[in-house]
Amino acid sequence: MEDISLAQAAVVYLNDGGRAALLARYRQIRQQSEQLCQPLAIEDYVIQSITETSPPKWHLAHTSWFFETLLLKVYLPDYHELNPHYAHLFNSYYDTLGEQFSRSQRGLLSRPTIEEIYAYRNYVDAAMVQLLEGVDEQHWQELSARVILGLNHEQQHQELLLTDIKHNFSVNPMRPVYQQAKEGKNKLAPELKWFDCQEGLADVGHEGQDFAYDNETPRHQVLLEGCKLASRLVTNGEFLAFMDDGGYQRPELWLSDGWAMVCNKAWQAPLYWEQVDGHWWHMTLGGMLAVNLEAPVCHVSFYEAEAYARWAGKRLPLESEWEVVTGRSHVQGNLRNAGYLQPVVTDGDKSIPQQLFGDVWEWTQSPYVAYPGYRRVKGPLGEYNGKFMCNQIVLRGGSCVTPDDHIRASYRNFFYPGDRWQFSGIRLGDSL
Amino acid sequence: MEDISLAQAAVVYLNDGGRAALLARYRQIRQQSEQLCQPLAIEDYVIQSITETSPPKWHLAHTSWFFETLLLKVYLPDYHELNPHYAHLFNSYYDTLGEQFSRSQRGLLSRPTIEEIYAYRNYVDAAMVQLLEGVDEQHWQELSARVILGLNHEQQHQELLLTDIKHNFSVNPMRPVYQQAKEGKNKLAPELKWFDCQEGLADVGHEGQDFAYDNETPRHQVLLEGCKLASRLVTNGEFLAFMDDGGYQRPELWLSDGWAMVCNKAWQAPLYWEQVDGHWWHMTLGGMLAVNLEAPVCHVSFYEAEAYARWAGKRLPLESEWEVVTGRSHVQGNLRNAGYLQPVVTDGDKSIPQQLFGDVWEWTQSPYVAYPGYRRVKGPLGEYNGKFMCNQIVLRGGSCVTPDDHIRASYRNFFYPGDRWQFSGIRLGDSL
Amino acid sequence: MEDISLAQAAVVYLNDGGRAALLARYRQIRQQSEQLCQPLAIEDYVIQSITETSPPKWHLAHTSWFFETLLLKVYLPDYHELNPHYAHLFNSYYDTLGEQFSRSQRGLLSRPTIEEIYAYRNYVDAAMVQLLEGVDEQHWQELSARVILGLNHEQQHQELLLTDIKHNFSVNPMRPVYQQAKEGKNKLAPELKWFDCQEGLADVGHEGQDFAYDNETPRHQVLLEGCKLASRLVTNGEFLAFMDDGGYQRPELWLSDGWAMVCNKAWQAPLYWEQVDGHWWHMTLGGMLAVNLEAPVCHVSFYEAEAYARWAGKRLPLESEWEVVTGRSHVQGNLRNAGYLQPVVTDGDKSIPQQLFGDVWEWTQSPYVAYPGYRRVKGPLGEYNGKFMCNQIVLRGGSCVTPDDHIRASYRNFFYPGDRWQFSGIRLGDSL
Amino acid sequence: MEDISLAQAAVVYLNDGGRAALLARYRQIRQQSEQLCQPLAIEDYVIQSITETSPPKWHLAHTSWFFETLLLKVYLPDYHELNPHYAHLFNSYYDTLGEQFSRSQRGLLSRPTIEEIYAYRNYVDAAMVQLLEGVDEQHWQELSARVILGLNHEQQHQELLLTDIKHNFSVNPMRPVYQQAKEGKNKLAPELKWFDCQEGLADVGHEGQDFAYDNETPRHQVLLEGCKLASRLVTNGEFLAFMDDGGYQRPELWLSDGWAMVCNKAWQAPLYWEQVDGHWWHMTLGGMLAVNLEAPVCHVSFYEAEAYARWAGKRLPLESEWEVVTGRSHVQGNLRNAGYLQPVVTDGDKSIPQQLFGDVWEWTQSPYVAYPGYRRVKGPLGEYNGKFMCNQIVLRGGSCVTPDDHIRASYRNFFYPGDRWQFSGIRLGDSL
Repeated sequence: MEDISLAQAAVVYLNDGGRAALLARYRQIRQQSEQLCQPLAIEDYVIQSITETSPPKWHLAHTSWFFETLLLKVYLPDYHELNPHYAHLFNSYYDTLGEQFSRSQRGLLSRPTIEEIYAYRNYVDAAMVQLLEGVDEQHWQELSARVILGLNHEQQHQELLLTDIKHNFSVNPMRPVYQQAKEGKNKLAPELKWFDCQEGLADVGHEGQDFAYDNETPRHQVLLEGCKLASRLVTNGEFLAFMDDGGYQRPELWLSDGWAMVCNKAWQAPLYWEQVDGHWWHMTLGGMLAVNLEAPVCHVSFYEAEAYARWAGKRLPLESEWEVVTGRSHVQGNLRNAGYLQPVVTDGDKSIPQQLFGDVWEWTQSPYVAYPGYRRVKGPLGEYNGKFMCNQIVLRGGSCVTPDDHIRASYRNFFYPGDRWQFSGIRLGDSL
Repeated sequence: MEDISLAQAAVVYLNDGGRAALLARYRQIRQQSEQLCQPLAIEDYVIQSITETSPPKWHLAHTSWFFETLLLKVYLPDYHELNPHYAHLFNSYYDTLGEQFSRSQRGLLSRPTIEEIYAYRNYVDAAMVQLLEGVDEQHWQELSARVILGLNHEQQHQELLLTDIKHNFSVNPMRPVYQQAKEGKNKLAPELKWFDCQEGLADVGHEGQDFAYDNETPRHQVLLEGCKLASRLVTNGEFLAFMDDGGYQRPELWLSDGWAMVCNKAWQAPLYWEQVDGHWWHMTLGGMLAVNLEAPVCHVSFYEAEAYARWAGKRLPLESEWEVVTGRSHVQGNLRNAGYLQPVVTDGDKSIPQQLFGDVWEWTQSPYVAYPGYRRVKGPLGEYNGKFMCNQIVLRGGSCVTPDDHIRASYRNFFYPGDRWQFSGIRLGDSL
Repeated sequence: MEDISLAQAAVVYLNDGGRAALLARYRQIRQQSEQLCQPLAIEDYVIQSITETSPPKWHLAHTSWFFETLLLKVYLPDYHELNPHYAHLFNSYYDTLGEQFSRSQRGLLSRPTIEEIYAYRNYVDAAMVQLLEGVDEQHWQELSARVILGLNHEQQHQELLLTDIKHNFSVNPMRPVYQQAKEGKNKLAPELKWFDCQEGLADVGHEGQDFAYDNETPRHQVLLEGCKLASRLVTNGEFLAFMDDGGYQRPELWLSDGWAMVCNKAWQAPLYWEQVDGHWWHMTLGGMLAVNLEAPVCHVSFYEAEAYARWAGKRLPLESEWEVVTGRSHVQGNLRNAGYLQPVVTDGDKSIPQQLFGDVWEWTQSPYVAYPGYRRVKGPLGEYNGKFMCNQIVLRGGSCVTPDDHIRASYRNFFYPGDRWQFSGIRLGDSL
Repeated sequence: MEDISLAQAAVVYLNDGGRAALLARYRQIRQQSEQLCQPLAIEDYVIQSITETSPPKWHLAHTSWFFETLLLKVYLPDYHELNPHYAHLFNSYYDTLGEQFSRSQRGLLSRPTIEEIYAYRNYVDAAMVQLLEGVDEQHWQELSARVILGLNHEQQHQELLLTDIKHNFSVNPMRPVYQQAKEGKNKLAPELKWFDCQEGLADVGHEGQDFAYDNETPRHQVLLEGCKLASRLVTNGEFLAFMDDGGYQRPELWLSDGWAMVCNKAWQAPLYWEQVDGHWWHMTLGGMLAVNLEAPVCHVSFYEAEAYARWAGKRLPLESEWEVVTGRSHVQGNLRNAGYLQPVVTDGDKSIPQQLFGDVWEWTQSPYVAYPGYRRVKGPLGEYNGKFMCNQIVLRGGSCVTPDDHIRASYRNFFYPGDRWQFSGIRLGDSL
């Protein structure tokens, strides 16, 4: 298998539990995707508000297509695809696997129906169980590595499900509620402090035998100039001060492309914010809520994050700085299991940086490029991460809709600098 | 009532049957709309393939909104709207009734759900029954006129339901079937003959006391140059001869704007046609079918109709010529009740022009303008027809998806010259 | 010659004077085009502000190409084109004569230089003289007809030269002056009166043996409903009253497509109007001037004309009504020779309608369609007028930049309903 | 002066020669700009083929505006601007200096005329001489630093003049010649060899007291993984092999955004290439010439460079790798003074890397971001480089139209990854 490096670290994990463990993990994650859709009406599965979002039904089908295409069709003798159209309809962007139905038109597909898509999931799951139970030792390693990749892939789409449902709902003047908002405690954001990161050589990138994406490797040395990292995320209240100081009207605060976007799209506030009678409200997965000034600002683009940092006299951290400071911190925070599904005020231990994991993906100032020595694997899995290494910016740390067991310090997310529909926010950095 | 002229002719009809007759008619037409949706999955109600089409759920809601807004809110004391959002969501284009939710985004609304929309229909229907049963004699005339307008409006949307479902389904590579195709008889199109229309003065426009739209009035004299009208519609086979003769490659056959559209949109055949292994197939409400060369060509734009006529050495008829020839012909043909839902080969009486009603809307060469003496009524109903009297072309005769009791000789339909998603076709004319 | 009908009426005119007269006419009109460019700097010849305008150098070359292509290459033995690129560069829209350089990119051609284009004109003129002096009697009639068409064509481009220079200059913040404005007398617009046109049959279309375009023929009967025509054009002051009454903010006054354009283009006043310190100014060929409230409003689209008429409780006249009222009126008015190059207050005889010719092209409510019996000629000249008979509206009467000897009562100009860069204005009509 | 760091290194240079030297340098560079325009017709000064290019007249005016705005208006008492419109018309992108005339419309300005623009240059030059001769010692340092920046700025526009003239001419089917092509010797490209760069820490960034832009500072350490750099540029012949191997048809070779651009823009070859009867030709400043397969490929985007490298089994170098290898190499090569104005076959010393300077700007794989410790200066000069540090890619080494005394090893040029109108090409790198 040429793409083994994509998931090489999976071996030990598997040896811990063997096939039964992987099978259990497979069932757990597949079920989670469906549980996330429980609050939806059938109609909610169908719609796509912008090209960047996908209909929930498409996410459910595409993740199944991934297993079908990269595992069942490769490893399971006599496997027959359920429907010959699905290879076309549910291929996202794998050119080496054939043409894809136009991404911007996914919301035009009423068929297959939701019921048919759940049947597709069941069909794939049954075949996957058969495959996992029956594969011989010789193929186990490469096969299990692909399964683990497929499960991580499905977790990414679980996060996208929530992200996309939020946007899909936001364009409806009725502002539907996905789930009643869980009340955050009414408290103040902690005082902002700074944590140093010394200059010199440091190691970054994935280490060890747990799963990681290929773009987190190879682990390598970087040379840091020395920096400071803020103890917590920028709050809505702080961002409002930027707005009140003319942040969206002053070109000198912005990158040139950012200012062009502010003008073209008439940005005046983060995505989802609306001013009603002088008060700011925003769309959440719990419907329209008043903006909590103490909670972290969310749904800002890289351009806004960068302009905010300039206005504040600081800068955004490099992804390497973020990773070195985070180091081996325990993964904890306002992730999906916390159930808020929106950023909340932290009340963690003040002696260490807060909110590194969860709440919002943190824009770094690092363009998304390959690590030294990185090579795309051959074949379709080479398209998973590598072909996007241009024009995008790295974000770190996961958000309030990221599965808790899906995030780690070396995890590199990436979006275009103008993207705002993700749960993306700001942590300030500074030079020493 | 300022808009009484829109439906003045309704009086006699009503006097025939009185309230009970109107109530029965109301129930019948409202039920028909719902029956047309029986073959749909819930998902099919949601989607909108292009700006010109609307989701089936929107049609169902909008027609209810029409009664709610123009009757219940005006005439029924203490009527409360079911949901304050609906006035915005389901207003189509009535600027005098407030802002409209963006037409191109109707397919983004998963809520209200289908169930909620049927509940809305029931809510409106109950109130309408209450209104019709309770209104006093003083308001009866103007109220009943509006009800009849609302029912004709709903019939127009019944036709659009089928037209739009066809297009919505066509963009899905699975090519869903709305209803199994009813077999047309396997026969040849009759020989083409010509029927004369003498030069001189003639009367056109609606006459009598049955319902008609305001744009069919006032009845007035026109001066005809004398013309010939073809005995039947142009067939797929005849249109294919145009294609085979380079019809889509020869600019000299086209209007300037038409040729620009051929080039921009890369038109090479009527909408829905696809060539597979050298044979032409097309999408229908019965799914993909082989093109029947003897049946009338359909889903061509005015530009294609006009270019075909030039290629054939003929011209399109004027709307007045069409109406004078049609005269008092009995309304019969392949209309919705025939159940084909696609144009079929005629086998009618050869001594009179065939297919005047049904099969396809026939492009005339007449721009859609006001008849002499026409004035828009004041208020929202003035927006029903009058504000569209620019840039569009008149079509006559109804199609295979037009309700049988909705069409008449004076009926003026109108679309932009580049539109093709309607069931529109070609009847040739010529000067004497 | 198949296209003889395009200019058949030219025969008598020619017999009056013969070859010498035509040659003199040729020289006169060719010189006029060049004289119109005298005020230009070389740089001014090059630019093209919008797709609809052309660079002055292109007009000078295209009119020469017309003679070269339709006369010299056809009739003059051994004629060699000066430059093989010109057939491509200076073909406007004649598909039957080969591909055309993209209309929207005419302003990107620095070469051929102005000097080379004048040399091209001289080269064509010398050959034309040779042709006109040498042609035998047998070809004289068809050839002279084409020459006369070419001269009328050149006169149309003389008008476009001034129209386009105005627009080209208007996008420059320095607002260049083409020619110092000639002072109109400081006087009031005459009181508005109405002239009747009786109902019944009337004849319209070109009559006689003077030149006319094919689209003015055949002369034919029309049936009029009876109408009134305003004695003068709508003034800036009257249009300002429409604006002050919310004309651009009230959708109920507009056609649907017009209102969409008002919103998309943010129209708030006629083209070229700018408000400075509460006063309205507008760009003219004499630079920025204060708007004279007594002079006719100009540079309005059909949509604005139509909305104004609705606001005023009137309607626009049909082209047939305009022509019948104008009848055999002597052609006089503020045409190009008057030297104003902008509409001015009339002080003509109050007993007849004023300003029928000159000042502004008057929008009618008539879509531009073929007269009964009209057929396109075969070959390139069939593209002159016929292929544009869709989506455009007829204007009548010529403007302040129309050559005095180029206009007549039957003349049909046509533009898209949203066009505003022509000198187009409003005369009200009404039903009797 | 807050922006002194932009040109701090200028001090020593100035002390060498003092005012007289700077004045001589000023005159020399200003004259060079005008000399570059000698081959142009007046018409050629006016046009702008795409938004990215500017009319030559605009370059001449803008560079004068730079001196006027950043020096004369700041330091010369009683200086009066020649024309109040110029501040608006000739501001490129400095938001802190007021609004800018739309970049995409620079080709619509026929006025000021060329003559007026030369007068503007003379006016500014006279005032600059007065300023340079009269300024006191106290302001000398900051003023001279700005003058040197202005001269480097003008040199950048000299390069753009040639780049833009080439594109402007290329859209004209007559393919005008800027300057007869100077014949390159007819020889073969040397064999490709590789030069190593050892792993470890290295210093990059500008060093010393000569002028450099702020984006080349601060000099800092980088950590290199170890790499190889090709001894010469990729040739047209080598790139043709990529094309012949389906390079433009194989998505697996491309970045995702690159492949989207290949499809959208239908790229099949480098910009300016045209196939005629099976042979490749390309537009040059000497007109249409046959593609020399031994010369470096030019006018490729980053996407094409990156895909070519992947196809070749290599990668593009990092900007730091390029700079370290280049080190203190003497600046020599096919730069502007060589007079070719197109890339040519090298015949330099084979023991060192060839073509590092001149021929083509070399795409690196490095996104254009700030060096560690870089801060934008306050005020307008902070907009010079810093606000573009997003979405662009660094290129190194200068091209055949770069002024010889304008380039250096630390020089960072930057363009969007899809840009092709610059003289940009490919040098391969590889990991050790």
